[in-house]
Amino acid sequence: MKRTHYCGDLRNEHINQEVVLMGWVQRARNLGGLIFVDLRDREGICQIVFDEEIDKQAFEKASKIGSEYVISISGIVRERSSKNSNIPTGDIEIFANSIDILNEANTPPIYIKDDDDVSENLRLKYRYLDLRKPKMQKNFILRHKVTQIVRNFLSQEGFIDVETPMLTKPTPEGARDYLVPSRVSNGKFYALPQSPQLFKQLLMVSGMDRYYQIVKCFRDEDLRADRQPEFTQIDCEMSFVDMEDVMQIMERLIAKVFDEALNVKIDLPLQRMTYDEAMSRFGSDKPDVRFGFEIVDLTEEVKDCGFSVFETSAMEEGKSVRAININGYESNFTRKGITALEDVAKTYGAKGLAWIKLTSEGVNSPISKFINDEAMNRILSKMDAKTGDLILFVADRDKIVFDSLGHVRIDAAKKLDLLKKDEYKLLYVTEFPQFEYDEDNNRYVAMHHPFTSPLDEDMELLESNPSKVRAKAYDMVLNGVELGGGSIRIHNSKIQEKMFTALGFSTEEAWDKFGFLLEAFKYGTPPHGGIAFGLDRLIMLLAGEESIREVIAFPKTQNASCPLTNAPSEADNTALLELGIGLLDN
Amino acid sequence: MKRTHYCGDLRNEHINQEVVLMGWVQRARNLGGLIFVDLRDREGICQIVFDEEIDKQAFEKASKIGSEYVISISGIVRERSSKNSNIPTGDIEIFANSIDILNEANTPPIYIKDDDDVSENLRLKYRYLDLRKPKMQKNFILRHKVTQIVRNFLSQEGFIDVETPMLTKPTPEGARDYLVPSRVSNGKFYALPQSPQLFKQLLMVSGMDRYYQIVKCFRDEDLRADRQPEFTQIDCEMSFVDMEDVMQIMERLIAKVFDEALNVKIDLPLQRMTYDEAMSRFGSDKPDVRFGFEIVDLTEEVKDCGFSVFETSAMEEGKSVRAININGYESNFTRKGITALEDVAKTYGAKGLAWIKLTSEGVNSPISKFINDEAMNRILSKMDAKTGDLILFVADRDKIVFDSLGHVRIDAAKKLDLLKKDEYKLLYVTEFPQFEYDEDNNRYVAMHHPFTSPLDEDMELLESNPSKVRAKAYDMVLNGVELGGGSIRIHNSKIQEKMFTALGFSTEEAWDKFGFLLEAFKYGTPPHGGIAFGLDRLIMLLAGEESIREVIAFPKTQNASCPLTNAPSEADNTALLELGIGLLDN
Repeated sequence: MKRTHYCGDLRNEHINQEVVLMGWVQRARNLGGLIFVDLRDREGICQIVFDEEIDKQAFEKASKIGSEYVISISGIVRERSSKNSNIPTGDIEIFANSIDILNEANTPPIYIKDDDDVSENLRLKYRYLDLRKPKMQKNFILRHKVTQIVRNFLSQEGFIDVETPMLTKPTPEGARDYLVPSRVSNGKFYALPQSPQLFKQLLMVSGMDRYYQIVKCFRDEDLRADRQPEFTQIDCEMSFVDMEDVMQIMERLIAKVFDEALNVKIDLPLQRMTYDEAMSRFGSDKPDVRFGFEIVDLTEEVKDCGFSVFETSAMEEGKSVRAININGYESNFTRKGITALEDVAKTYGAKGLAWIKLTSEGVNSPISKFINDEAMNRILSKMDAKTGDLILFVADRDKIVFDSLGHVRIDAAKKLDLLKKDEYKLLYVTEFPQFEYDEDNNRYVAMHHPFTSPLDEDMELLESNPSKVRAKAYDMVLNGVELGGGSIRIHNSKIQEKMFTALGFSTEEAWDKFGFLLEAFKYGTPPHGGIAFGLDRLIMLLAGEESIREVIAFPKTQNASCPLTNAPSEADNTALLELGIGLLDN
Repeated sequence: MKRTHYCGDLRNEHINQEVVLMGWVQRARNLGGLIFVDLRDREGICQIVFDEEIDKQAFEKASKIGSEYVISISGIVRERSSKNSNIPTGDIEIFANSIDILNEANTPPIYIKDDDDVSENLRLKYRYLDLRKPKMQKNFILRHKVTQIVRNFLSQEGFIDVETPMLTKPTPEGARDYLVPSRVSNGKFYALPQSPQLFKQLLMVSGMDRYYQIVKCFRDEDLRADRQPEFTQIDCEMSFVDMEDVMQIMERLIAKVFDEALNVKIDLPLQRMTYDEAMSRFGSDKPDVRFGFEIVDLTEEVKDCGFSVFETSAMEEGKSVRAININGYESNFTRKGITALEDVAKTYGAKGLAWIKLTSEGVNSPISKFINDEAMNRILSKMDAKTGDLILFVADRDKIVFDSLGHVRIDAAKKLDLLKKDEYKLLYVTEFPQFEYDEDNNRYVAMHHPFTSPLDEDMELLESNPSKVRAKAYDMVLNGVELGGGSIRIHNSKIQEKMFTALGFSTEEAWDKFGFLLEAFKYGTPPHGGIAFGLDRLIMLLAGEESIREVIAFPKTQNASCPLTNAPSEADNTALLELGIGLLDN
């Protein structure tokens, strides 16, 4: 017997056809003389009926099956008397004339249904059962579909899929590498790649022109929040391009993914917003623009307001007073609600979160008594404040003001349920600072990486005022999440030298860290640039999931272990001896 | 200036168009008043002409360029006065009106041309230059094209691309794993996967139905011949299928690759040849059927031949006398030539290689004098011998006879230049033995792996006569090379238990080694099977290359190192401390 259809594919049009289905028993009910079986496969669920009077033998076999048994049935599709509009196959059922039990099943330790509320650890231990859930199957079909769309698009645009090595050299200046001891050269180690960055630049030096790869990357970092030791990137690099070339092709890629995978149309070109604008309006370099509550600078307005906390910040260089207007939602936030927002602000360094409510009875605020009327009018006017608004202030160093108000803004929107999962707001953030100041080590570090090119017009500032240099770097942001980022790279060795000087590297140090790339750059390097997208995160957002673990088949737990296979595990002593390594006592 | 075309794409149809090209200077010749530049990019080479009289400024700039400079030019396509039929763009040239030098280049340490005869070590050290060679670019474009064909075909056939983990659990019973020490759980190790075998079977248990992945696999084995520490597999698995289902879909896949990548039509269905037939006719389980010289069993014919060497082997159980007829090529093999073939036979355990030549003057052979006329007639008749033939004999244990004659057969064909690279003979070898006897450990081991299902008709023999059990295993063979192999797996736990018993495992040992898979199999496992193809080898054969290193962008050397990046290299002491490992003194 050969399978003729997937369970989930049967519709009215198949009525009266003889079909063979194979799948798992979701549920079997014996209603005395009739057995109803919900049969499940990757594509969906379908109802099968066995009638004792018509086929006693099949009926008796069917009476032996239980949940998750694997069976094969044949029968005729017929119209269902009581239709089930909850499932796509609800108009029909299969009137079975034979059944084969292909395999039995013990009672599964977790239920095969989407809303099964078991611990994640149990889900991961029995991942093969967890993956049977319709939602999980849908996620992986979506993931497959998206990678296929990406591959076809990039192929058509002339990108070549080139595999770069997994066993490579430790990364200078990055996150922590996973190391792989060498058996042939004891005492030496490979590193698993954090990204194929250097290799993709080498491929540009080699004239491959356009490269892409959907590739595993590795970082041995502590798994806070939603990180995984191994993750997947859509990695691209192009030669003879400028920023706009890369951004245009990549926004077309992502628009194609939304169109073909979700049937959602994205308007192109995406908005380009500078880093400075993103910070000053949204307090974040990955602004969520699905809602307002934008940050407003009140530094001028509060200079003589009478409230010393504001006045001090308004006077000092590098400090400011800013606010957001949670307009129309005053009544949604009790004192307790505002205190919760203040706790968010404090997490990001703010000393407090001043507030003004505009209730139907007028201004309600613990700080209003300190602020003179004139200043209050200036503030309310600048904030476009109306009855029903809640205004939240932070006065501090700019970085703290942006960070805290940016997060308060998101948190307020979350509480107000304004973050619609099926609304997709995409934009590019551009003109990132070239450098960040590393206060621990008292030097500038590259915000993206040391091969990112400065903007042409800022080239002069490399030596004179590094902090003002903007980079040819861009991030694509979706609903407040960074989907991907990239840059145009430096291809001129003189500029590269200036870059290393600005980073405080001697020529020797630079060669020690990046020698083989610098050597390669001597032999005819084309202008080039690229981008990398986080595939796991992209799929998570497309699937409307909250965690990347829902779109990774066999993810690791927070302590980087796998409850299914028990990896990592102890190694054979002989193996360690061959590798020339021993375990340290703790 | 935006690039309008690739250099290699310009043809007659572009004449009179204004174009902008960007690429590398293959060669620049100043013929006094005229400069001719061969400009190269990924797609090919095109001639550019600068005329001093027409555009002095461009001419002067052009006079400064050297080999491998990166330039951008604009100009008009015009017909070439002296056409060059060696290159696809040979009918035209670009009459340049401007040039930008995008980057300079030092003299490259290797020439950028296909027949550059430098050491492989130098090629790998300057791989980014080596990859500029047109042949190498073509190889990687082919590789990209093939993977794209494979992905599209498998997608259309309902296979879902699911990523399995790279950081996983050490493999029981296989080759040596690469180990990755865990920082979070000191003393424990991940292993890099030798294949996703267990995960793809788990995905079948999870109901994914059809899975594929083009995936990196790892084996820490000594790199004899043409192995790499990391290699790439096209990995597939299907549920609810039998052997023919898998073989049919996979032969259609490979035929599609040949058709779309090489425009070569493969007749389907491929021949199915049993393992026994492949061994007895070709002395190999991966027969090269591009030529004859098939092995003929002469055991009966030589029983009373008078030559004791033959007679002894003909009488003993497990031994035989067999021969191949290098028909028509007698004169191509001198005594020295035959000795060279004998050396091959000896490498595979034969004590010697007896031979008979049928020259125009009759039988010429050092053994003919020992063989009586009747037997000689029987031999010559069975070998279908004619004037001009060379017959080569081995008498020994069957395994040695097959091995040595199988290799002599190939070697002779190589010397006769009968192995045409552009002739593609594909077939399936089926009905492999389930077990091989491991003489070192005195037990049976699985020839494929312990989850391979026996043939239904051999199931009875599992306990009574394991050596006779044939497996539901199949290999696809191309021109004597194994392209891929797979099997139908055991999905019934009772048969799995019998299998472990036959392999000499106690239930405890089996659970210790394969516990999580055996546990998974309890909860409703569908019948399933799959296959894996070696992608590197497939591309190598399609590209007509002799080594997989020609189709891997950044391969390792024989001692598993990378001359470009110097991986593996020494690790930071802090890093090792964090991992809880130390280096052993040697």
